[in-house]
Amino acid sequence: MSIEDKQRPQRTDRVTIRTVAAHAGVSVAAVSKVMRNAYGVSDALRARVTDAIEALAYRPSRAARGLRGRSFTIGVLLIDIRNPFLPEVIAGVNGVLAPSHYQAMIGVSDARVQLETSLIESMIDYKMDGLILVAPRLPSEILAKFAVQIPIVAVGYHDASATAFDTVNADDQRGAEIAVEALLACGYRDIEMLSLGERQGHAVSVVRQREIGFRRAMQRGGLGSSPAISKIPIASPKREEAMRKFLSRKDRPRAVFCWSDLDAITLLSLAMEMGVRVPDDLAVIGYDNSPTAALGLVNLASIDQSGRELGQVATRALISRIEGRTASEHIFQIPSLVSRNSLTRSGSGTDMKQG
Amino acid sequence: MSIEDKQRPQRTDRVTIRTVAAHAGVSVAAVSKVMRNAYGVSDALRARVTDAIEALAYRPSRAARGLRGRSFTIGVLLIDIRNPFLPEVIAGVNGVLAPSHYQAMIGVSDARVQLETSLIESMIDYKMDGLILVAPRLPSEILAKFAVQIPIVAVGYHDASATAFDTVNADDQRGAEIAVEALLACGYRDIEMLSLGERQGHAVSVVRQREIGFRRAMQRGGLGSSPAISKIPIASPKREEAMRKFLSRKDRPRAVFCWSDLDAITLLSLAMEMGVRVPDDLAVIGYDNSPTAALGLVNLASIDQSGRELGQVATRALISRIEGRTASEHIFQIPSLVSRNSLTRSGSGTDMKQG
Repeated sequence: MSIEDKQRPQRTDRVTIRTVAAHAGVSVAAVSKVMRNAYGVSDALRARVTDAIEALAYRPSRAARGLRGRSFTIGVLLIDIRNPFLPEVIAGVNGVLAPSHYQAMIGVSDARVQLETSLIESMIDYKMDGLILVAPRLPSEILAKFAVQIPIVAVGYHDASATAFDTVNADDQRGAEIAVEALLACGYRDIEMLSLGERQGHAVSVVRQREIGFRRAMQRGGLGSSPAISKIPIASPKREEAMRKFLSRKDRPRAVFCWSDLDAITLLSLAMEMGVRVPDDLAVIGYDNSPTAALGLVNLASIDQSGRELGQVATRALISRIEGRTASEHIFQIPSLVSRNSLTRSGSGTDMKQG
Repeated sequence: MSIEDKQRPQRTDRVTIRTVAAHAGVSVAAVSKVMRNAYGVSDALRARVTDAIEALAYRPSRAARGLRGRSFTIGVLLIDIRNPFLPEVIAGVNGVLAPSHYQAMIGVSDARVQLETSLIESMIDYKMDGLILVAPRLPSEILAKFAVQIPIVAVGYHDASATAFDTVNADDQRGAEIAVEALLACGYRDIEMLSLGERQGHAVSVVRQREIGFRRAMQRGGLGSSPAISKIPIASPKREEAMRKFLSRKDRPRAVFCWSDLDAITLLSLAMEMGVRVPDDLAVIGYDNSPTAALGLVNLASIDQSGRELGQVATRALISRIEGRTASEHIFQIPSLVSRNSLTRSGSGTDMKQG
C-alpha cells in the first residue's frame, strides 16, 4: 500500500437524522423514536425508517455528533475486567441496547482513580449520551459534578441520597444477611466473614455494605455485636497466603461467608489441596453466583445478585434520564441464595429465595 | 437539582498540548514524547512536562481532538466479553498503556458483524489513534478499507498476507499440534477434537487454524488424514446436550482436544456428573490456560497462548504504527502446554514447552 493510499478519504456524504427523516417522509422525532426503540412505534413506521437508514447507509454515531442531537453511544466504566460479575453486567447492558440503535463503549479503570477520572472526562468529551459507572471509586461529590455534564447511573455504589445521579444496586446488606441466616438454619454458630483487605471498603462500596449486613444478622442471631471479619488482601500471592493461614488456623470457624465468589472459589481450591473437607469441616457461601460457582466441579453456594438484571435496569434508567428525567432514582434489587454442596450436601442448585 | 443546574458549563479554558509545551518551556514534540512514554526521555524532561500537565489540569483526550494531533485513546474491539481469554488480552493492553498517557476504550460486538462495523466506525469518528481488533468477524478486505482511515492491529485473526494492517497471533496450528503430540506421548491413539459449531470457523479464525493443526498432527502420528472432529454448538442448551451425547457415545474416544477451555471445563463438569472418570476414562486438553483451568478443583491441562502477552505485543505494534510505521507486521507467538490432572495424574502444573 502506497503512502497516497494512507490518506484519509474526504467525507462529503454527510447523512444526518434530518436526511433520513426526509427520505422516509417522517419527522426527525419519529426517526429518533425508532432508533432508540421507544414504545408506541408502529411496525410500518419502523420499516419505513429502517429502510431509509439502510438506503442512506446512515451512521447515527457519526452524524449525530455533528448536530446538537444524540450520539446514541453510552459509556460504561468498569473497575476491573476479571471479576466474573462484570461481564454479566455488560451482557445486561448490551441486551437492552441490542434492539435499539444505541451502542456501548467500555472503559476499564483497574481501580485507579486517576484513570477513572480521565475515562469519564473522555466519555463526556466524546459527547456520549450517558454513563453507567460500575463500582466507581470516586466520591459522590465528584460524581455529582460530572452528572451536571452528562446523565449518570452508578451500579454497585451505595448512595441513596445522591440527587444528581441514579444508583442501581442489589441490596448488599440483605444479601449478607441471607447468607448468615442460611448458615444459622444449617445449625452453624461459629461463622466468620472473609472480606476484602486494603482500602477498597469505602462507605459506598458493596463490600462495606456486606460487612454491615453480616454484623447485623450475626447480632440478630445472638452471636455478639462484633463477629469476626478477616480481611483478605486483593493481590496474589498475599491473597493465597492469607487464605492458607485462615485454613490452617486452629480456631478456624465452622462456616465462612466470602464477600465474593472470586475469593470463595480460590478458598475451595486451597481447602481441597490442604485436606479441609467442604462442607464437612468448613461450610462456604460466596457472593455473585458466578458461572464458575455453578460448575459441578466447584459446586459453590452463592448469593445471586443477578449482574445481568442490574445491567438491564441500569440501562433502562439511563435511557429514561437521557430522555429527560431529572429526579434521581435509587433502585434496589433483592438478592437470593443459590444453595449448593459447599453449604450442604443436599442443597445442590436449590434457589432459596429469602427476600 | 434544578433545570438550570443541568445545563452544561461553558468551556473557555481550552488547554492544548501547545499550552503545556509553553508552560513547561519545551517543544510540543517533547510533550508528546513524554505523554506516550517514548524511549529516550530524561527524568528531568518528564518531571517538567508532568508538572505542567498537572498545573494546567491538561486533559489530552479532550484537547487533542480539537487540534490535528492525537487523542491518546485507542479502541479495542472484543468479539465477546465472557470468554476468559479476553480479559487477559485487555490486561495486557492496559499494562502497556498504564505508564503512558494513552487510554483504551472497549467495544463488545457480541460476534454481530453489523455491531462490529458500527463500533469500528464510531471509533474512527471519535478520532481514536488506533484500533486493536480481537478476533473480528469482518473479512480482510473490509478491515483493509478501515485501515486506510486508522492504524489497525488484529489479534486472533490469521491473515499474514494483509498489507494494510498488522496481525498478532499465537500459532494456533502449532498449539493444536502440541496438544496431539502430548496425547500421543501418553499413549493415546483414539483421539477426537471438539471444535466450534456454526459458522464461527471462517478461514482467518483461531478455531479453523486449530483444526488444521489437529489434522496435521494426527496424520503425522499415523492416525489417518481425516481424524474425527465433533462440532459443538456455541449456545446453551444445545451445547450441553451435544456434550452429553458425546460423553455417552459407545464409541467415545479415549482422549479429546477441546478448541477452548470454555468447552473443556463444561465437559469436565458433565463428565463428573455422568460418572466418566478423567483422565482414566477420558483424557482432556483444553485451550487458553484460563484461570479456571488452573484451579485445583478443575485441574485442566491446557494450551497456554498467553492472552496477556498477545495484548502487550499488539499494543506495542499499534503504537509503533501510530508513530508512523506503514509496512505491515505479522507476529506469531509459540504456545505451550500446561500439563495437569486431566491429561495425566502426575502432570499437575508442569509446563511442557514444546515450541
